[in-house]
Amino acid sequence: MTASFPVSERNKLRRLHERGRYDKDGVYAVLDAAMLCHIAYVIDGQPYCTPTAFWREGDHLYWHGSSASRMLRSQKPGLPVCLTVTHLDSLVLARCGFNHSVDYRSAVCFGTAHLIEDPAEKERALDSMVDRFYPGRAALLRTSTVQELKATTVIGMTIDEASAKVRSKGVADEEEDYGLPIYAARFPVRQVVGEVETCPRMPAGVERPEGLAGFTPGRRLDEVMSENYRKTYAT
Amino acid sequence: MTASFPVSERNKLRRLHERGRYDKDGVYAVLDAAMLCHIAYVIDGQPYCTPTAFWREGDHLYWHGSSASRMLRSQKPGLPVCLTVTHLDSLVLARCGFNHSVDYRSAVCFGTAHLIEDPAEKERALDSMVDRFYPGRAALLRTSTVQELKATTVIGMTIDEASAKVRSKGVADEEEDYGLPIYAARFPVRQVVGEVETCPRMPAGVERPEGLAGFTPGRRLDEVMSENYRKTYAT
Repeated sequence: MTASFPVSERNKLRRLHERGRYDKDGVYAVLDAAMLCHIAYVIDGQPYCTPTAFWREGDHLYWHGSSASRMLRSQKPGLPVCLTVTHLDSLVLARCGFNHSVDYRSAVCFGTAHLIEDPAEKERALDSMVDRFYPGRAALLRTSTVQELKATTVIGMTIDEASAKVRSKGVADEEEDYGLPIYAARFPVRQVVGEVETCPRMPAGVERPEGLAGFTPGRRLDEVMSENYRKTYAT
Repeated sequence: MTASFPVSERNKLRRLHERGRYDKDGVYAVLDAAMLCHIAYVIDGQPYCTPTAFWREGDHLYWHGSSASRMLRSQKPGLPVCLTVTHLDSLVLARCGFNHSVDYRSAVCFGTAHLIEDPAEKERALDSMVDRFYPGRAALLRTSTVQELKATTVIGMTIDEASAKVRSKGVADEEEDYGLPIYAARFPVRQVVGEVETCPRMPAGVERPEGLAGFTPGRRLDEVMSENYRKTYAT
């Protein structure tokens, strides 16, 4: 049994709770397979839902450049947020409308967002972001200027509570419906990497770095993201 | 010039506003290419971000089975929500960390969610959901039971304000950086349909319906979704 997140009224799964789990390994597997998340936050009672790239270090999540940063600047105690990741794995066509579904993996994380304002901490976080997606890449780049670091907002949060939910069973109909003459099927869905388009303005002789080896055409992005995460945060 | 959504402090784009648009056609193109969205809402000051399938009819959006339904039952005036759709189109690897990016299409919609409680309206909405994803399929299914309809929560909202944002330019570096010996490239990302897995318990002789013709292996899901939307809501 791995460590688990505490369960409260906030992260307790209400619907189809048999699909859910609260263990950290289960939640992290969903998070680390993703590049993008959606973040919910509230300003003056109005909810906002913002997509952004994010990354994880232990129990901490980081992202940058959200409009929540406006709010954060004036709010020292931090801003409650809910950060969600979803992978769509298949479309499920059953014999009645009620049993139509999708196979998916999702993770929902609750915490309090705060600005990373210390310049050194910010620089380290941004290097981690590049390396998390593209192992070893930060060291190969042109160094960030002071102006670029100033123009970048980095936001962090500790995961206080979280849950993951996975559906993978495909078609599941009522027993008495299987004999009906109705077409039922699962259409798998995959997010895949295409053929690389190198920048036409590169000087001659620049080789593709070893850290990008995972991005081969046709590979699943979730697998590449998980693999790259392990490469960068190998224990 | 097509019709546009009003612009307020809520949906006005703050960052990189040159990527944004407020016209309905631009917003709908992003929405109608998707099956899933993420919805932000607030309960007792706590934001939640829930992934769910959704569909559009004119200026109305519908979804079902969100835990927001708990809240909605006790809140007659409705619940402010923000519904967001994001398509990831490519990973952009530039010559400095600051210019790393992704190409994407996103739409953010603001409105007030309300329960669809009238049984006939609910049944019609659920049929529309099936048909929007799978043209003509609702009529081919076993009819929903009263119990199934009761067990399904349908939520609707009118889009009061919305914006769309699109980045598609790939690598864009500082002019003085192009000569550096640093690998720069775009990796396209596509969500594609795989080989269909038909339910092994279908009676012999059940044919694949014509309405599913779009789901051929290797096709982009966003294109199939847009095409199916047009088929069902052809004017």
